[in-house]
Amino acid sequence: MENEAKKWRFRPNEAINTAADITIRGVLNAIMSCLDSEDKRPVIPLGHGDPSVFPCFRTTKIADEAIVEAVRSAKFNCYSPTVGILPARKAIAEYLSLDLPYKLSADDVFLTLGCTQAIEVTLSVLARPGANILLPRPGFPFYEARAAFSNLEVRHFDLLPSKGWEVDLDAVEALADDNTAAIVIINPGNPCGSVFTYKHMKKIAEMARRLGIIVIADEVYDHLTFGSNPFVPMGVFGSIVPVLTLGSISKRWIVPGWRVGWLVTSDPNGVLKDTKIVECITGCLNISTDPATFIQGAIPHILERTNQDFFNKITGLLRQSADVCYDEMKGIECITCPHKPEGSMFVMVKLNTSLMEDINDDMDFCLKLAKEESVIVLPGRSVGLKNWLRITFAIEASSLKEGFGRIKSFYQKHAKIQ
Amino acid sequence: MENEAKKWRFRPNEAINTAADITIRGVLNAIMSCLDSEDKRPVIPLGHGDPSVFPCFRTTKIADEAIVEAVRSAKFNCYSPTVGILPARKAIAEYLSLDLPYKLSADDVFLTLGCTQAIEVTLSVLARPGANILLPRPGFPFYEARAAFSNLEVRHFDLLPSKGWEVDLDAVEALADDNTAAIVIINPGNPCGSVFTYKHMKKIAEMARRLGIIVIADEVYDHLTFGSNPFVPMGVFGSIVPVLTLGSISKRWIVPGWRVGWLVTSDPNGVLKDTKIVECITGCLNISTDPATFIQGAIPHILERTNQDFFNKITGLLRQSADVCYDEMKGIECITCPHKPEGSMFVMVKLNTSLMEDINDDMDFCLKLAKEESVIVLPGRSVGLKNWLRITFAIEASSLKEGFGRIKSFYQKHAKIQ
Ligand SMILES: Cc1ncc(COP(=O)(O)O)c(C=O)c1O
Ligand SMILES: Cc1ncc(COP(=O)(O)O)c(C=O)c1O
Repeated sequence: MENEAKKWRFRPNEAINTAADITIRGVLNAIMSCLDSEDKRPVIPLGHGDPSVFPCFRTTKIADEAIVEAVRSAKFNCYSPTVGILPARKAIAEYLSLDLPYKLSADDVFLTLGCTQAIEVTLSVLARPGANILLPRPGFPFYEARAAFSNLEVRHFDLLPSKGWEVDLDAVEALADDNTAAIVIINPGNPCGSVFTYKHMKKIAEMARRLGIIVIADEVYDHLTFGSNPFVPMGVFGSIVPVLTLGSISKRWIVPGWRVGWLVTSDPNGVLKDTKIVECITGCLNISTDPATFIQGAIPHILERTNQDFFNKITGLLRQSADVCYDEMKGIECITCPHKPEGSMFVMVKLNTSLMEDINDDMDFCLKLAKEESVIVLPGRSVGLKNWLRITFAIEASSLKEGFGRIKSFYQKHAKIQ
Repeated sequence: MENEAKKWRFRPNEAINTAADITIRGVLNAIMSCLDSEDKRPVIPLGHGDPSVFPCFRTTKIADEAIVEAVRSAKFNCYSPTVGILPARKAIAEYLSLDLPYKLSADDVFLTLGCTQAIEVTLSVLARPGANILLPRPGFPFYEARAAFSNLEVRHFDLLPSKGWEVDLDAVEALADDNTAAIVIINPGNPCGSVFTYKHMKKIAEMARRLGIIVIADEVYDHLTFGSNPFVPMGVFGSIVPVLTLGSISKRWIVPGWRVGWLVTSDPNGVLKDTKIVECITGCLNISTDPATFIQGAIPHILERTNQDFFNKITGLLRQSADVCYDEMKGIECITCPHKPEGSMFVMVKLNTSLMEDINDDMDFCLKLAKEESVIVLPGRSVGLKNWLRITFAIEASSLKEGFGRIKSFYQKHAKIQ
């Protein structure tokens, strides 16, 4: 067999493995493989942002029935146009325009396979040879992975825990050069649970304009806010600087498995058209595949008919979970939370390994926690901050309490004797 | 505004536009933009393989209801695992094993967004620096586009019209070198409508083994045969040479908009595992997005419950349309068909522009035909053969007749006076 294998000429593309190693999926798969099958307690999933398995987070029936209607109509079995079907584009333009000082048109909207594909397309389009992009640290590592895949150079700026995870604006100025194409802003924030103020966002927009770069606004957690700052879309500043708004129905409707999102040019001055970015987006979509056509067909109903009660219920649940999370953490000495979460589904906490006997670092903590307590948490290193943890609070409150109970006993078991 | 634009630093990635220019989508978009809105007759779509808009080609209710059940269960709103959900992988393994001399396992199956994403992943995985791939001419240009996107060198071998579009095996031997990773075989054939014999496929497999390369078997038209040769999956020869089988439900179930397909290792000797190709496939899927989870959830029912009557109806319709197409073409002097189609949805015909007054080439023919007769046909150049046409016969028979009637009068209008 050894000899046999040698005769084959093909080899895998190592660059793919390098890019894939960076993803949350890869890290969580590794952590989950440590779970102890003897432990009969349910696994507590504090690792990823998907509460859809909990009945209280079930999506609205209106969304289900919009799908049923679309599939039964047999009008959407065909291939989709490159940019998505017109009624869906129109509905998304109207939905997003509600929060903007100008009106988007269907032409501004490109349907994508979740926010994930919107990221893929954006980075592919901007990855001309030599270009670089500014990414937040901590951040969402899918950006790093896709940048690596596309040979797009990454430069990191810090989010400042002492300032409620605001962008270190001076650092951004220092990082940018003539080859910088864009800055990525994730708001509401993953992994920090922060929600930027209007004032801070305006500063970001003005700085991007000075630098001559695009703002990529990842708003996949749009409207999932429950603190004092309301959600402000970056598109509000589209006449200062061209904005590419990335979003999806995954989070607000709690249907991440449905795979519909959007890439939107929030750019009333038409800069992205003039600079041929728009044309290149269409080109990239021509060599990609599309969201299922019948799910696109359901989008107008989903966006227009979902009522505020459903949204209120979801943000209510998230507020409650964030509170539980914040309170429970206070009782666990090895973790400290610099900033109470106000949006999204996550919080970043600092891990103090020096308080523990036999825990080397964040990864070690997460692997042992999975093995001993069947609790999944993401090591901070995978979002750019070593010896931090990213904790998802977007699960049912009772499971969340159970999870923190187990983290506490895990800590107590491993704590240094004082 | 001119001056304004200059201050922006970002530029689009030209490589994307280059890749996108190669696609059928791009060409068809250009041809459709020539349609005359004054012409009130229905457009006859002979350009792409999607008959789903015709009521006679409507998919089985069993498929619709499998979706309805899956979405209403709320069990599939969550993110999918990287490789797809287990029940769907199992069902696909069993479905494909029916036609193989060995049994596939769920581990051999990776769910993809249609066959399209299976192609994307396969080419990304094989595109290590310096590698090349052998593609058929005429072929399916999405391969060329994705190879360009991944910097994978392409070498073309011919399909021989005089031999029923069989592979020119000697040419393949001459093309391959130490950097050749794989050969792509599309069977049943797009664009030629050919169906390879068992004997020819075995020769391809043996040659690939000698060369030490993978066979990429694009079987998106599996079972859509209606001539004398039955469909033989390339996986039958998996113990001779490792085969990557790419397929989907798009064509056999006439639901190209549903976006579910597969990438399958038909490789009983485990060569693709030993050479780490499998690991790299998973890596690539880690940095990509997935088919909608609830559609994956419907796959077991769709594959297990669809009855033979439905399949027979569809192949019956295709046989009938292929006959109509073949007969109608005989009456149009400027096109000749070297080989009656026996499978898939397409036929290649040679265009004789010298019989016409004012038609320069295949592209000119297609643009003017769209403008004057509202008939869409694909110029052969976009599948690699200049001054040929690819005609889709997979539409309702009456529309097909209407289409050929219009092509005939188009020809008569442009024919040279003898
Ligand atoms: C910041 C951020 N962007 C994008 C995504 C991907 O979103 P989608 O599920 O819509 O593809 C996620 C998912 O967790 C995310 O956290
Ligand atoms: C040869 C070939 N491969 C792949 C595809 C893509 O198939 P899917 O619709 O399943 O993505 C097509 C579609 O026309 C095709 O003709």
